Amino acid sequence: MSRVYNFSAGPAALPEAVLERARNEMLDYAGVGMSVMEMSHRSAAFIDIASRAETDLRELLAIPDDYKVLFLQGGATAQFAAVPLNLCAADSAAAYVDSGYWSGKAIAEAGRFCRATVAASSKDSGHTSVPPRSEWSLPKDASYLHITPNETIGGVAYDGIPEVDGLQLVADYSSSILAAPLDVSRFGVIYAGAQKNIGPAGLTLVIVRGDLLGRARKDTPASLDWTIAAEADSMYNTPPTFAWYLAGLVFRWLKDLGGLEAMAEINRRKAATLYGAIDASNFYASPVAKANRSWMNVPFTLADPALDKSFLDEAETRGLTNLKGHRSVGGMRASLYNAVSQEAVDALVAFMHDFERKHA
Amino acid sequence: MSRVYNFSAGPAALPEAVLERARNEMLDYAGVGMSVMEMSHRSAAFIDIASRAETDLRELLAIPDDYKVLFLQGGATAQFAAVPLNLCAADSAAAYVDSGYWSGKAIAEAGRFCRATVAASSKDSGHTSVPPRSEWSLPKDASYLHITPNETIGGVAYDGIPEVDGLQLVADYSSSILAAPLDVSRFGVIYAGAQKNIGPAGLTLVIVRGDLLGRARKDTPASLDWTIAAEADSMYNTPPTFAWYLAGLVFRWLKDLGGLEAMAEINRRKAATLYGAIDASNFYASPVAKANRSWMNVPFTLADPALDKSFLDEAETRGLTNLKGHRSVGGMRASLYNAVSQEAVDALVAFMHDFERKHA
Repeated sequence: MSRVYNFSAGPAALPEAVLERARNEMLDYAGVGMSVMEMSHRSAAFIDIASRAETDLRELLAIPDDYKVLFLQGGATAQFAAVPLNLCAADSAAAYVDSGYWSGKAIAEAGRFCRATVAASSKDSGHTSVPPRSEWSLPKDASYLHITPNETIGGVAYDGIPEVDGLQLVADYSSSILAAPLDVSRFGVIYAGAQKNIGPAGLTLVIVRGDLLGRARKDTPASLDWTIAAEADSMYNTPPTFAWYLAGLVFRWLKDLGGLEAMAEINRRKAATLYGAIDASNFYASPVAKANRSWMNVPFTLADPALDKSFLDEAETRGLTNLKGHRSVGGMRASLYNAVSQEAVDALVAFMHDFERKHA
Repeated sequence: MSRVYNFSAGPAALPEAVLERARNEMLDYAGVGMSVMEMSHRSAAFIDIASRAETDLRELLAIPDDYKVLFLQGGATAQFAAVPLNLCAADSAAAYVDSGYWSGKAIAEAGRFCRATVAASSKDSGHTSVPPRSEWSLPKDASYLHITPNETIGGVAYDGIPEVDGLQLVADYSSSILAAPLDVSRFGVIYAGAQKNIGPAGLTLVIVRGDLLGRARKDTPASLDWTIAAEADSMYNTPPTFAWYLAGLVFRWLKDLGGLEAMAEINRRKAATLYGAIDASNFYASPVAKANRSWMNVPFTLADPALDKSFLDEAETRGLTNLKGHRSVGGMRASLYNAVSQEAVDALVAFMHDFERKHA
């Protein structure tokens, strides 16, 4: 068996140690005589797995006690609807900052349920930066302000948490949660699909401050109602148990590594390696404003797009996979999530040098 | 490692051959160099996994070409909302047959979105049978008629597919799909949570006739909209890829076994073994009307409920687990899903004999 270097934007690389443990426990978890997949979610063994995962996540992110942590299904897409349904009356306003593709999806979905207004947008500049805070127009009556701290497709990231004039801040952290420490107390709600930095696709985390519960509209489907989920410890109906277990293994892997301060340092160095290589070359270029370059998703272009296919093909032969950029951006994209090692980034940069020498 | 006999109602036992294969492929699927969990859902390798799973399911259930098969998230609970949102205008009626706990949940959730009327109920007799067809009152103007062919908690099953006067028939087949052949053409929609006969929790199958698409209400969250899912081949957003893969392994296991005719014969014999033992004894009893006894979920009681705890404890020492009945019914429940072997049922019956001899 030989493992490749996987730069997929999601579902994405998982820590090998996590996969090995899941493999070893696949037919018999801790002597229980069955797979985690086969356990009742009400069993003592699974309740232990579930609560340990939550405890470890709370420790990693230093989540304050007055926040609930929910383990749900449906991805960020389901939360695009859940956010207005749980926080906003049908005739009320909600404000969104448009920093790219996924902001746009969130805005469009919210528009089905409330008056979704765009407080700021970087659309005119091709979504290559976050709209500067000084240009945001925040409606005082908005039920919340929604941001996308890291745009997976554009590779555009916020430089810190913005000040929002007392509005409830809601954030789709799908592609950068757990990449670095985070001040949860600045947010009303944080949500994230699991398939980048948390675990396998099919699990969605929601971290919501307790006082925001109890406001869901009557027409909220039970599966999207945070209050119902919170009251049932995310077991109103059967949760995605195996994904929850794997997320727990990832959380423990992060703790063993030294937590999010240590992870942030690793991620900072990985990103510096790749952006450094791009900036040092006239052959490669980053379309993203320097202040908003994502540590997690690094889009880059080749000076001659006619070489794109050769680049991808040759990369593949070196075991460097999933480097093709999203169709809406073109070029390349390397996603450097937590489970992507410095070694993988070094191998990518070495290949980029070789490719440039050969084709420049 | 020693595996137990697992009679859990769900999440439930999976075929050992499926778990072994998943284990062997955990770090490297088919030489691709990564786990299925790490693959982009848009990658050639995953598209192949996904479409093979659908092809095998279509073959197993002989699904007509004009039906779409959707691989979704959220469990049957999410579909309890999706059914009215996709099929029924806000001011229109939908009819439900109440045959137990899960019918009741479906009715309550539908009531948020349309006029959900109860066409028949076995509540007065404690939900120990399906309401006789002759007593159903079908409103002509109902957008659909919803049934629960197998009640997981009550162990109550329909004896065949009812004739419904031309109404669209919608069925929650969560706990009996794939247990036997099924005439899909009799239904407008069939849905099922995966965690009984399909695969791990976190995947939900929806089989919907094509002409029923395109009717979703404007306030349908995208994650619950069948038309959006159908148009995107269940990849409007990231699907639960690993659960989809495991479902595919289960479908292949069923095909290797000889398909659903063969599976039905195995299930018929397992159920006959257990009901036979119950009926032959004055120590054990089944609360369910004979015509409506489920092959999948077998609730039974002990003559003296004071012995319940001893029964469960002693069963556990013999490697027979998850036999406790649901709190709303009491007593015991043995779930005999496809992955529960005749050997497991024989071991349960042997224990029941021993326990009776010792305590009667």
